[in-house]
Amino acid sequence: MSKTSDNILKQLKVRRQKQKAILGMRWKCAQGGLEFEQLDTFYRAIRPYLCVAQFFGIMPLSNILSRDPQDVKFKVRSIGLVVTGVFLLLGGIKTLIGANVLFKAGLNAKNMVGLVFLIVGIVNWLNFVGFARSWSHIMLPWSSLDILMLFPPYKRCKRSLRWKINVVVLIVGFLAVGDHMLYYASGYCSYSMHIAQCHTNQSRITFDFYLEKEFSDIMFLLPYNIFSVCYGFWLNGAFTFLWNFMDIFIVITSIGLAQRFQQFADRVGALEGRHVPDALWYDIRRDHIRLCELTSLVDASMSNIVFVSCANNVYVICNQALAIFTKLRSPINYVYFWYSLIFLLARTSLVFMTASKIHDASLLPLRSLYLVPSGHWTQEVQRFADQLTSEFVGLSGYRLYYLTRKSLFGMLATLVTYELMLLQMDAKSHKGLRCV
Amino acid sequence: MSKTSDNILKQLKVRRQKQKAILGMRWKCAQGGLEFEQLDTFYRAIRPYLCVAQFFGIMPLSNILSRDPQDVKFKVRSIGLVVTGVFLLLGGIKTLIGANVLFKAGLNAKNMVGLVFLIVGIVNWLNFVGFARSWSHIMLPWSSLDILMLFPPYKRCKRSLRWKINVVVLIVGFLAVGDHMLYYASGYCSYSMHIAQCHTNQSRITFDFYLEKEFSDIMFLLPYNIFSVCYGFWLNGAFTFLWNFMDIFIVITSIGLAQRFQQFADRVGALEGRHVPDALWYDIRRDHIRLCELTSLVDASMSNIVFVSCANNVYVICNQALAIFTKLRSPINYVYFWYSLIFLLARTSLVFMTASKIHDASLLPLRSLYLVPSGHWTQEVQRFADQLTSEFVGLSGYRLYYLTRKSLFGMLATLVTYELMLLQMDAKSHKGLRCV
Amino acid sequence: MSKTSDNILKQLKVRRQKQKAILGMRWKCAQGGLEFEQLDTFYRAIRPYLCVAQFFGIMPLSNILSRDPQDVKFKVRSIGLVVTGVFLLLGGIKTLIGANVLFKAGLNAKNMVGLVFLIVGIVNWLNFVGFARSWSHIMLPWSSLDILMLFPPYKRCKRSLRWKINVVVLIVGFLAVGDHMLYYASGYCSYSMHIAQCHTNQSRITFDFYLEKEFSDIMFLLPYNIFSVCYGFWLNGAFTFLWNFMDIFIVITSIGLAQRFQQFADRVGALEGRHVPDALWYDIRRDHIRLCELTSLVDASMSNIVFVSCANNVYVICNQALAIFTKLRSPINYVYFWYSLIFLLARTSLVFMTASKIHDASLLPLRSLYLVPSGHWTQEVQRFADQLTSEFVGLSGYRLYYLTRKSLFGMLATLVTYELMLLQMDAKSHKGLRCV
Amino acid sequence: MSKTSDNILKQLKVRRQKQKAILGMRWKCAQGGLEFEQLDTFYRAIRPYLCVAQFFGIMPLSNILSRDPQDVKFKVRSIGLVVTGVFLLLGGIKTLIGANVLFKAGLNAKNMVGLVFLIVGIVNWLNFVGFARSWSHIMLPWSSLDILMLFPPYKRCKRSLRWKINVVVLIVGFLAVGDHMLYYASGYCSYSMHIAQCHTNQSRITFDFYLEKEFSDIMFLLPYNIFSVCYGFWLNGAFTFLWNFMDIFIVITSIGLAQRFQQFADRVGALEGRHVPDALWYDIRRDHIRLCELTSLVDASMSNIVFVSCANNVYVICNQALAIFTKLRSPINYVYFWYSLIFLLARTSLVFMTASKIHDASLLPLRSLYLVPSGHWTQEVQRFADQLTSEFVGLSGYRLYYLTRKSLFGMLATLVTYELMLLQMDAKSHKGLRCV
Repeated sequence: MSKTSDNILKQLKVRRQKQKAILGMRWKCAQGGLEFEQLDTFYRAIRPYLCVAQFFGIMPLSNILSRDPQDVKFKVRSIGLVVTGVFLLLGGIKTLIGANVLFKAGLNAKNMVGLVFLIVGIVNWLNFVGFARSWSHIMLPWSSLDILMLFPPYKRCKRSLRWKINVVVLIVGFLAVGDHMLYYASGYCSYSMHIAQCHTNQSRITFDFYLEKEFSDIMFLLPYNIFSVCYGFWLNGAFTFLWNFMDIFIVITSIGLAQRFQQFADRVGALEGRHVPDALWYDIRRDHIRLCELTSLVDASMSNIVFVSCANNVYVICNQALAIFTKLRSPINYVYFWYSLIFLLARTSLVFMTASKIHDASLLPLRSLYLVPSGHWTQEVQRFADQLTSEFVGLSGYRLYYLTRKSLFGMLATLVTYELMLLQMDAKSHKGLRCV
Repeated sequence: MSKTSDNILKQLKVRRQKQKAILGMRWKCAQGGLEFEQLDTFYRAIRPYLCVAQFFGIMPLSNILSRDPQDVKFKVRSIGLVVTGVFLLLGGIKTLIGANVLFKAGLNAKNMVGLVFLIVGIVNWLNFVGFARSWSHIMLPWSSLDILMLFPPYKRCKRSLRWKINVVVLIVGFLAVGDHMLYYASGYCSYSMHIAQCHTNQSRITFDFYLEKEFSDIMFLLPYNIFSVCYGFWLNGAFTFLWNFMDIFIVITSIGLAQRFQQFADRVGALEGRHVPDALWYDIRRDHIRLCELTSLVDASMSNIVFVSCANNVYVICNQALAIFTKLRSPINYVYFWYSLIFLLARTSLVFMTASKIHDASLLPLRSLYLVPSGHWTQEVQRFADQLTSEFVGLSGYRLYYLTRKSLFGMLATLVTYELMLLQMDAKSHKGLRCV
Repeated sequence: MSKTSDNILKQLKVRRQKQKAILGMRWKCAQGGLEFEQLDTFYRAIRPYLCVAQFFGIMPLSNILSRDPQDVKFKVRSIGLVVTGVFLLLGGIKTLIGANVLFKAGLNAKNMVGLVFLIVGIVNWLNFVGFARSWSHIMLPWSSLDILMLFPPYKRCKRSLRWKINVVVLIVGFLAVGDHMLYYASGYCSYSMHIAQCHTNQSRITFDFYLEKEFSDIMFLLPYNIFSVCYGFWLNGAFTFLWNFMDIFIVITSIGLAQRFQQFADRVGALEGRHVPDALWYDIRRDHIRLCELTSLVDASMSNIVFVSCANNVYVICNQALAIFTKLRSPINYVYFWYSLIFLLARTSLVFMTASKIHDASLLPLRSLYLVPSGHWTQEVQRFADQLTSEFVGLSGYRLYYLTRKSLFGMLATLVTYELMLLQMDAKSHKGLRCV
Repeated sequence: MSKTSDNILKQLKVRRQKQKAILGMRWKCAQGGLEFEQLDTFYRAIRPYLCVAQFFGIMPLSNILSRDPQDVKFKVRSIGLVVTGVFLLLGGIKTLIGANVLFKAGLNAKNMVGLVFLIVGIVNWLNFVGFARSWSHIMLPWSSLDILMLFPPYKRCKRSLRWKINVVVLIVGFLAVGDHMLYYASGYCSYSMHIAQCHTNQSRITFDFYLEKEFSDIMFLLPYNIFSVCYGFWLNGAFTFLWNFMDIFIVITSIGLAQRFQQFADRVGALEGRHVPDALWYDIRRDHIRLCELTSLVDASMSNIVFVSCANNVYVICNQALAIFTKLRSPINYVYFWYSLIFLLARTSLVFMTASKIHDASLLPLRSLYLVPSGHWTQEVQRFADQLTSEFVGLSGYRLYYLTRKSLFGMLATLVTYELMLLQMDAKSHKGLRCV
């Protein structure tokens, strides 16, 4: 890349080595009283979900069970990468078969959705492999910052990071499982009514026949039996898991970063009425720079995941919105349609809202600075205030857009405009009917 | 919520207790000369409208008749909350019946409007209950600020707050009553012409039959008689009142806040040519921080009301705009259509314009600071100037968007673009006719 | 209005009286050498066009022939206002007849254009009456600033203000006359081909019959003869003149303001390498404040004109764009269509580009400040730099939007998006034809 | 133009003369050790491509083979301008014939594309002549800056400018040649299938007949033979070359400027921990001003090229997007369609991304300034920091929009919205089919 960023990377390397030393030292110091793995670090909070992700070949890291973030690294020769490879292969075959069927039948806006879902899945597996490669470069400074901020002068938050992340993930996960099950229920219902209306052969209305149609891309290569059905469920599940994991991962990371900015703001807030020497302001400013550097490091590594996540969510929402006035066949179809639309909207909003908290929290110390008494306002404080306002801190999609409340509003506004157009077209087609 | 805001809330509590003391003291001091209730506080200005709102179960507060803001509190066991509960119950039943009819007939863009109107009403009742809960937390610092700013060094405004609010509310209220009456007139007219055209039984064209159709959701449960008709009018009226009150409430609050920022700007302006010691600048800056804190407290509590208000207004305007080229049956339909469209646009613009005045007024002192002579420009003045420009002061809808002139323009531009599309479609359908 | 602005207005009054004195003094001083009317003031440059405008009842001012801006005032009892009243009356009658015809035939997107044109005309006459009322409040500080900036230390520009304004007005005026004449030519052409195709009575294809149709709203009240035709031409011409004058007036005002900011930037630029005492910086800063105050005074008075101008231009352009793929009857129709579309686009762009020059010119001194040597950088220079960047200087439409290049781009982008939609619809309707 | 810019231009002239002297001196100094033409200047990197461009009459400069940028000037009497004239003449004839055919057949959205392509070509030739006129005014300060920044204290980049530019140009050029060849292949394929379906005379399916149709505008004037075919290929090729060159030229210029800003940031970064005297900060700030002045000089000269490039790219992409759901005749049509669409998108993104790097690189020193120790933070550093953030540095299209990531996102978002509308219309037309 560019010289300057190279330069910065070099310096980061030097700094990282120092941090390693600090990490080791602090750890040993903590040996006596507090175990390292009992600290409320981001690594401890995210590890269980990373372990689950391994089963679906997402983010292949070796030594993921270790409690020491220094052990967890991306290795080319590892079981994780093999699992990912298998998923990429099987997913790739599924995608190719699907694409083949589609191109033969003629691609159109409606049948494209399924194919896009599969391609997004494949791209995401690759994106997460990319993220895994930079994992150790991110986790090391992050863990050292975590350790730094779990001891005074920083105060712990009332709710631990682990608790927050667990609550969010469990709720989203529970809703996602519901969504996935409703998908099959709605699909079977549609299938059976379709057969009942269009075919004379009513004996085909069984769950088996439905599955044969649902997994037709797999039955293309394998015979129909219990194993191939299970395989179908499993592969479909993996794609769906990945699709949800993408968003959840952004949410988790955002919570982790926002928490640290909150703690930082609390520390500055605690100094509100007191006399603060310049040296302390300098230390605080250094910590702020470290936090910002960590955020921009994470942002640079996650940009592709954020970009694909947002693009995909907007696409699927718009696609769903298309069908909003379509008459569906049965109540279960309605339930699935509205459930999945609202779930999607809520998940997308959650991603934006949690990510925007990083930026909001990073601006909180500004208020405290207003209250610094006249006599104690020095150049160092001025520089700190300038620093707080001069740069955007947060996640972005290749810096094309930032995850803020304003972006969310822009997205929603576009969506509403789009929906209004549909509304109008729908109204047009209901115009003629007056005396009914 | 977050740690820092908790922290701030705690500090606010401490400060509020101090303010309580000041409030009491000032009050006693004022006993001799000026009665407290004769002061031009925001509480005195809004109280009459809160009393009216109680009749419709909006913002249930106990002791609303008291002239002391300290007595007015939200209580779970109060008559106000019972009234609100009754409205929520009756409104809920009305909504459910309406929804049931709609889902049976098939939901489409056109018949959805009525249902949305009812749902927005229910949501608003709940929103106002939420606002009532934080009422005393807002009114106490506000009243103490009001008292502070009604004595020197602050000057009173030429027009009292009470006068301004009364004028605006009376005008909007008068227009709203006209809108509501035109609604029935237009509805009856449409009904009678519909019957005359489509049915042979001309005897059904009476106002009674019209009401039976208009209140069909109520007649579903009750027999048709004078009481059920009155009940129908009353419930419809309550929903319409709430719908208008939502916007008026934002307008009143905005006027109240903007007035204080104006007074603040006047005070700074009065110092223009003079030598001002740093201590005075510090006091002024403190007052500004208090004003900004009050505004963000109000903003946080009102966000949901602002959000629902704007979303609803935009939806109804777009929906009306849909019908702009529809041929209507009679002149009274035209009158109602254009009256309600223009009333709606004016009301929405009023909300944005008055709310944007808060921000505009908060920037006014900047001009005065430019004129501070060279010798008297100190760090304290510099900090004040920085403070004025660094943050947005005003109301917002969950900080997704801010109530500013720019937002209003964006909304209008989107609306115009939307209308242009309709215009074009209309033009397309008039293309064939050339030789007529 | 608000207290602060009242306060400011009072101070402006005091200052204006002082300026009057200065104006008088300078004038007497100048008596010896240079006549006042020979100075290149904005008033001298705009006066000829104001005189022409009087003939169409636009901006009724008394003593418009006087060369002293102090004499020119808005008077209720004046010939100008009578002329305006006559135009409003006659224009109002024309509008009412037009509206009546339209509402009978049914309002649609296509026939609405003519009515909008008339209504915009009426609104503009009223707007200019409003501007005339604040004329003397604007011209007095402006003239005194002009005199100030026509003597050293300010340097004159190479091209005089008068020359610039004359060139722009003559070019636009010439093109506008061409547009107006093409309108009649194209209208007659359409009329004759329409008659030839749809009617058997070919004898009706004369210019007289065309005029009878064109001025049908006038012939509704008056008999058809040479006087009523002349009256028709004259009233139509007045509306068209007003329509162009609106834009030209904004352009002239913008050039006048931009020139002064340019001179100001030149003065600051001339100090680039030198040692500048703080007192001089303070004087420069004062002049800048005066320039900004003048601009915001003009902006406040012109907002309604700017708003109507932009709204109308966008509406007409979009309306023209609608017909871009319509097959027209004859070459002269094509020529008129494209001529008027391009003329309109060019005129609108001219308004935005000249108005944006005010803001661009107001930022020019910033570059010079970068080059102030380290030793001479004082607080006064810092304040000047802050002042330059802190506020927007320029014209706006009620501050809903500002006349900048960015706004122009936004408008053009919306227009292009709109046109793309038409393009797509056009493409759809040409789809079927493959083997031709 | 304006006085101030004239003034600035005069000063630039004086400075340019000084720079000339420095350039000469440095050159002589370098004679001993390093040859001038071995330095990694922008001129050396772009020269080969300028030479190639001469063959197509683009940017006519005399002495283009000289290795000294001082020798390369725009001359009215030169071979380059004659070549350009020939291209303008032949291209103009082609365009006129094309326009004539189109206007006879009736202009519509679909057949307009070819005409727009030709007109954009003509406009570009003229734009590049305009740029050639200001070439020597740009290259002289640029070369002197290049020389300045190729010696210490500036460090060289790892990758030379020449290497970077060569790699980008070769890749884009290779893809462009592929695109051009696919155009003919796809065109021939379409032609043969069209004839096979609609005509009985199957003997017409030869490449000769295809070329006769493809170059019908040339065959209008010339007989069909090998020379006229070659002429057709050559003229078509020239237009296509120009079309690609426009974008590539912006990319090359952006890389050249971004590299210098990177080096500048590196230099500031190298000072991070050290004590830096004010005089050095002043020197650095001077260099930054020179870099910014160069950028705005280039921006002013290239605005028309940037504007036409973006407008054209957006138009062609939207036009292609129109056909995204059209059923095409053969696989080669599909390949060409998707290849050219993706190539176009990639090229447009490349333009925006490389151009946005200028701005990004210009902000890099800010980070280093945060790390300046408290004791060494002087007014000079403060001014430098203010300077870095106060102005936009980069390329723009007449300052209507800037080439940034945000603009690219806006463009993409508009495109996606547009595509979504198509998607919806497509979905509507596939609605009826359920039992298939």
